[in-house]
Amino acid sequence: MKILVSNDDGIDSAGIYALVNSLKEIADVTVVAPHKEQSAVGHAITMQTPLRVFEYHRDGKFFGYAIDGTPADCVKIGIRNIMNEFPDLMVSGINHGSNTAVNIIYSGTVSAAREAAIMDVPSMAVSVTSHSVNDFSFAAEIAKKLALEINKRGIPKGTMLNVNVPNLPKSEIAGIQITMQGKSKWDDVYEKRVDPYGRNYYWLTGNLVELDDSIEYDQIAIKNKYVSVTPVHFDLTDYDMYEKMKSWNVDKLL
Amino acid sequence: MKILVSNDDGIDSAGIYALVNSLKEIADVTVVAPHKEQSAVGHAITMQTPLRVFEYHRDGKFFGYAIDGTPADCVKIGIRNIMNEFPDLMVSGINHGSNTAVNIIYSGTVSAAREAAIMDVPSMAVSVTSHSVNDFSFAAEIAKKLALEINKRGIPKGTMLNVNVPNLPKSEIAGIQITMQGKSKWDDVYEKRVDPYGRNYYWLTGNLVELDDSIEYDQIAIKNKYVSVTPVHFDLTDYDMYEKMKSWNVDKLL
Repeated sequence: MKILVSNDDGIDSAGIYALVNSLKEIADVTVVAPHKEQSAVGHAITMQTPLRVFEYHRDGKFFGYAIDGTPADCVKIGIRNIMNEFPDLMVSGINHGSNTAVNIIYSGTVSAAREAAIMDVPSMAVSVTSHSVNDFSFAAEIAKKLALEINKRGIPKGTMLNVNVPNLPKSEIAGIQITMQGKSKWDDVYEKRVDPYGRNYYWLTGNLVELDDSIEYDQIAIKNKYVSVTPVHFDLTDYDMYEKMKSWNVDKLL
Repeated sequence: MKILVSNDDGIDSAGIYALVNSLKEIADVTVVAPHKEQSAVGHAITMQTPLRVFEYHRDGKFFGYAIDGTPADCVKIGIRNIMNEFPDLMVSGINHGSNTAVNIIYSGTVSAAREAAIMDVPSMAVSVTSHSVNDFSFAAEIAKKLALEINKRGIPKGTMLNVNVPNLPKSEIAGIQITMQGKSKWDDVYEKRVDPYGRNYYWLTGNLVELDDSIEYDQIAIKNKYVSVTPVHFDLTDYDMYEKMKSWNVDKLL
């Protein structure tokens, strides 16, 4: 099995290192990841500037390719110009911090896997539910097992799995739950500050407001110590509204 | 009616100017838009650096607020800290270049409207199908009429309209078509060049491969001279796969 690995925390992060070491036990792994952290970049791609590719070493040996771009850039150039072939699987992560509910939209980790799905490559994004993770071993083990399962069973073209793993030892994990994207949302607050020159600037902060009540939703699953696995696609058409709007007689607006 | 306007081409673009002038005929308009062009930024939000807000003038008078951030940032800070209330409608555009099919994922124009939808504000993204548009008047007229229609009929929370207008005079428009997100995709090519110092760099290029065959899909609708209106939401759960995966017995992987 050939696997392409990327992330959004950057090629030097602890999460990608644990992931690569785990996946190497079952596959031929190519790493193409951002040179610098790219959290919350969403599904950005770089078009206004060219990309550069750097060879990156770790533990005194070649680890992978660093790109001065976004996670989606890494997947595109990784497949088109570095691997020069379509991998059997693309895995993004392991991210520091969960990617549930509306965060699926903002996440660079998820966007890397989504870019692979757009290219008809089966893919998975893996995140751990804490920004201060010391031990990625359980999440890396889950990633490896799910990689084998995806390879065995297959997933539909255009679909990816979004996996969130509680930051707990395996013994405390309640189970693995197939989930839906939760409805939880951010209550944004921009904290206003004044710089040394008297000018205002604003930091984005806020709280995730939980709007779900069942472990069938990603955010509630991880809160209840379940590994959450959400199948995600990129067909954004609202089909209910599509049918409803046919009665709007929009041609009258011309 | 209170309308928030943003875009991804930047506050100084011709498209946002035409849009604002048209919407001012029916509403109280607040403009909060990126200081610089932000095309293909996807749904990026700025968290690692603070944002600044600048007052921007046009034709010798106040036009709106320029933000050194992304389209999604503009909507968040525009609603939370500039308007300090939820508008009745948010409109993004008018973009130079279409946003159909998979480009809905990459588009900054669409992401601004999606951010409003996430905040339960009815919204619409408007694009014209050419990168060299001289006359935005027809698209601005359609935007105004659809704004009134949305205000009258309402749209569900979490849904936005993605509108693409052919770059044609009104007399050549075939009609207005309610559409689905097309399946068309990019066949990416990274063009390799060598800089004056002998190092490689890569420009993203490519062609959109049309995979649809009916004007019920956005990309084909605009090609056939229809205005395309696609209702889009941000629930990315693949429900078919969600049901199917329940039989995977993933708990065995623990």
